[in-house]
Amino acid sequence: MRIFRIAMAQMNATVGDLEGNVRAIVKWIKEAKKAKADLIAFPELAVTGYPPEDLLLMPRFLELNRRALDEVVSHCRAIAAVVGYVGQGASSESKLKEPITVPAARYEVHNAAAVIADQRLVTSYYKRYLPNYGVFDESRYFCPGRGIPVIVLNGTTVGVNICEDIWLPEGPHRAQAAAGAEVIVNINASPFHLAKGRFREQMLATRARDNGVIVTYTNMVGGQDELVFDGNSLILDQAGEVLVRGKAFEEDLLVVDLDVAAVGRSRIPHARKRWLGQAKTRTERIVVSGAYTPRRGAPILPGGARVLEPLEEVYSALVLGVRDYVRKNRFRRVLIGLSGGVDSSLTAAIAVDALGGKNVLGVLMPSPHTSRESREDATELARRLRIETRTIPITRIFKAYLQSLSEVFQGRRPDATEENIQARIRGNLMMALSNKFGYLVLTTGNKSEMSVGYATLYGDMAGGFAVIKDVPKTMVYELARLRNRGGAAAVIPKRVLDKAPSAELKPDQRDEDSLPPYPLLDPILQAHVEEDRSLDEIVRMGFDRETVSKVITMVDRSEYKRRQAPIGIKITHRAFGKDRRMPITNQYRNV
Amino acid sequence: MRIFRIAMAQMNATVGDLEGNVRAIVKWIKEAKKAKADLIAFPELAVTGYPPEDLLLMPRFLELNRRALDEVVSHCRAIAAVVGYVGQGASSESKLKEPITVPAARYEVHNAAAVIADQRLVTSYYKRYLPNYGVFDESRYFCPGRGIPVIVLNGTTVGVNICEDIWLPEGPHRAQAAAGAEVIVNINASPFHLAKGRFREQMLATRARDNGVIVTYTNMVGGQDELVFDGNSLILDQAGEVLVRGKAFEEDLLVVDLDVAAVGRSRIPHARKRWLGQAKTRTERIVVSGAYTPRRGAPILPGGARVLEPLEEVYSALVLGVRDYVRKNRFRRVLIGLSGGVDSSLTAAIAVDALGGKNVLGVLMPSPHTSRESREDATELARRLRIETRTIPITRIFKAYLQSLSEVFQGRRPDATEENIQARIRGNLMMALSNKFGYLVLTTGNKSEMSVGYATLYGDMAGGFAVIKDVPKTMVYELARLRNRGGAAAVIPKRVLDKAPSAELKPDQRDEDSLPPYPLLDPILQAHVEEDRSLDEIVRMGFDRETVSKVITMVDRSEYKRRQAPIGIKITHRAFGKDRRMPITNQYRNV
Repeated sequence: MRIFRIAMAQMNATVGDLEGNVRAIVKWIKEAKKAKADLIAFPELAVTGYPPEDLLLMPRFLELNRRALDEVVSHCRAIAAVVGYVGQGASSESKLKEPITVPAARYEVHNAAAVIADQRLVTSYYKRYLPNYGVFDESRYFCPGRGIPVIVLNGTTVGVNICEDIWLPEGPHRAQAAAGAEVIVNINASPFHLAKGRFREQMLATRARDNGVIVTYTNMVGGQDELVFDGNSLILDQAGEVLVRGKAFEEDLLVVDLDVAAVGRSRIPHARKRWLGQAKTRTERIVVSGAYTPRRGAPILPGGARVLEPLEEVYSALVLGVRDYVRKNRFRRVLIGLSGGVDSSLTAAIAVDALGGKNVLGVLMPSPHTSRESREDATELARRLRIETRTIPITRIFKAYLQSLSEVFQGRRPDATEENIQARIRGNLMMALSNKFGYLVLTTGNKSEMSVGYATLYGDMAGGFAVIKDVPKTMVYELARLRNRGGAAAVIPKRVLDKAPSAELKPDQRDEDSLPPYPLLDPILQAHVEEDRSLDEIVRMGFDRETVSKVITMVDRSEYKRRQAPIGIKITHRAFGKDRRMPITNQYRNV
Repeated sequence: MRIFRIAMAQMNATVGDLEGNVRAIVKWIKEAKKAKADLIAFPELAVTGYPPEDLLLMPRFLELNRRALDEVVSHCRAIAAVVGYVGQGASSESKLKEPITVPAARYEVHNAAAVIADQRLVTSYYKRYLPNYGVFDESRYFCPGRGIPVIVLNGTTVGVNICEDIWLPEGPHRAQAAAGAEVIVNINASPFHLAKGRFREQMLATRARDNGVIVTYTNMVGGQDELVFDGNSLILDQAGEVLVRGKAFEEDLLVVDLDVAAVGRSRIPHARKRWLGQAKTRTERIVVSGAYTPRRGAPILPGGARVLEPLEEVYSALVLGVRDYVRKNRFRRVLIGLSGGVDSSLTAAIAVDALGGKNVLGVLMPSPHTSRESREDATELARRLRIETRTIPITRIFKAYLQSLSEVFQGRRPDATEENIQARIRGNLMMALSNKFGYLVLTTGNKSEMSVGYATLYGDMAGGFAVIKDVPKTMVYELARLRNRGGAAAVIPKRVLDKAPSAELKPDQRDEDSLPPYPLLDPILQAHVEEDRSLDEIVRMGFDRETVSKVITMVDRSEYKRRQAPIGIKITHRAFGKDRRMPITNQYRNV
């Protein structure tokens, strides 16, 4: 039994924090050395954090990234490492002859995986397939690589590649397998969205089986602005069976013994053998001679982490997203406006799970339209979550606005204007508390509201981070129920889940006065916003034409609001923000 | 003398308005037919407007775009046309063998130029070089084309290509010229920034001369969200001399007789001939037989439009940007908060030039910190611009906030919080007027403020369109002086230009209490924000290290504000918004 001992560091890197990231990388390398690993793999762009966006256009940043890698290299004695960083300069194979996207950077910049052994940078693999869709902008920064190295390390043949590369059947793993690779080391910064984990695992199993190789998938973990990387690193054997799973939404170090001798004995059907044989792309074989000989103990084959249910995954993503946004932006405490509704209740529960109750302050800002029940529910929620509250009624301020505007508004009837004034008074109060005490304001709007514009710009939309911005209202209820089941006792009062949603900005207001009921609204929104379906298609799904037309129009007309909304955590296939880039000036009416 | 009569339609398309764009295209075709043109060229993506952004991911939108093109084709009797639209499907030459960016769309989508003759779509040229830097995201949507058609039309050989294609010396024009093209029809949606026109003209002159061809450059005109297309279409002869210029910042139809016989006689140096001869890329020769024979009158060689000075260009871009944002988003009137400062004065002047004085309402919102001079200056400006004003003092509302917050703020000293509350009261009042009367709020912050975060989120930053967001403060003064020279009498009172800038949010406040003087600040900002220079580099330019370090830190820490700012007009090499994509969570400190 020939064994290759691999360590995978599922790391929470921070964008721009080169020193902090290197410190973390070095710490993991030391642990992996103690565990006698042959090689340790780190996520894509572990040195810079992902995505560094336009930092990549700054020559000084690229230089410091390279120096940070040198620091990592100096710590790789008696262990090999694969580390994501930003590579620069063309190898002889990366000269491009065909017309492709021209990057803005003055230098040829690559999304690179450093292969390090014996305190030496052996080679750099440059990512070949650059995602430039959804939240990704990699063609803005990087040139695609051309070289396909295959590394022979302590007798085991290893193919290194990066993230998107392995999503294509004809990716570099094929040429690497054809050239004899037994283990594919694929490093990733793959952000979470609902159901992605399952696709990812199916795809990796297929790649392993198709190519008859062990696939190791090392993912980033942690929150970065709109994105949450979910970890869930994987190792699959040559038959596509999962050997081990990394933790979900937590840092983790996996050390596993791979039976590479078995790879050579794997039976690949003839047709697939021919397909592999046709992967004629020239690979570059690099032998790392035995400059170190790690001693081995007993085989290591940990059981690995539990697979979360989809709703648990979403909740975990929201908690980690909040924790990391707050921590990485050097805040400690947050403010949440508590209305007694389900959105602010869920947001508060998530914040408490992310930061602890003592770092969350609830703010009640009642008006004459606020019901007794809402005040009671907000107070009860705070009591159960053990968070402090402040109460600042808005009536006096609202009256001052109406008086000051009475002359200009003379002869005009009350309308949405007066509702928005109230919401904006609350926004101003929240920001005043934020300015005075240095707390971050978390907003509480859900995806259904953000979609149709049922929210007040600078009012309830005012704040630094929009926790459940990508969570449809119907899922808000599901998550609230999940959270109530999770703890010893339900934290969100039952009445919050049972009563009809209302903005409480005028007497007897109900969301359903302005919007279709959420169980009807949400699937229409999903079809339009996430799936680009046309009016006719949505009607054919079984919805009333007038309703669909009204919903689409509301979505399309609210783009200006969303453009000024705070960022929030992506949990669906398509979130607002970088993920969906619509013009504001847009006369296309798909109705 | 063999003559090719070309028409160039410098058109103001609207994103998403397929019907409106087709109506405009058909109108221009009719005019060009009257003028007996052989061919009329329209801008890049004239059918959809540019950039359509994620509309391009909607199958229904692509289908309607194709139908819109069919409508255009049906009008091209007895004239040929080159029309920008979205092409779909691979030609045999556009199958890609090399790894390139994988687009998100399910279909192979192209930025295309339809070549139409005799009511027939003769061929489509697919753009080969897709810009994916700065404000451009073309790799998100399009596959690069591979085919290079050369069209023989009424005896003249024409090479069609699109925008970025011609910015590369080895672009398709080279192969087209080598294959005998006499005229290059290059169609564009090229957004304005300062000094771009000069680079563009130099580049086009070089391409014409290098390849010994006539180059016709048809540009879009008009505002689209952050972008203003400046028109300034050009025709250059085979010696690189400008034959004719389109208007700046206005629609225009140019009809010009090109002496194509002279192209064949042009003397190309031997070295360049060899270089051209090496352009071996296979071109596809398409002969459009003489299905129509336009009769010709006397040769047409108009003198063309005047070249504007750089500052005039900026002013014109701002006026057109405001006019089109307002018009294309179906507003009629705008609101501007008038403080008596230079920013709001300039913004008001631009708005009046864009929309007429009767469509601009000035709002004065004085506080106890507002000086008598500021009130006088704001009133005098409004008088000279002939715009109506409303005055809504904020003192009463401010007192109500302080009272309501007194308990929570007990024991805390006044700080920036109280300044921000005032700014946010003004934001709320402006939005209340906007909601009640349906006017668009224009914000008045300049680029220097936006850079260092010297502005209140939801306060003075509250509004739909930020007119001078990309104009540094020192240039605000230059533009104000330019405007004062332009009219019969100075519209911006002299005292506005002379007094020290102040936010007037506390007693005796001056911008210079918090910021370096603007003539010092602006070049540092330019170096950091627009040129990606490091601290050391900027210090070497002759600035004090501590000042530079402070400025860089202010810029980097204000990203969260800019992310929620209204969009505004790009006029520099690098604007905020789509042009500069920085992470909010970012621990890189280049200081």
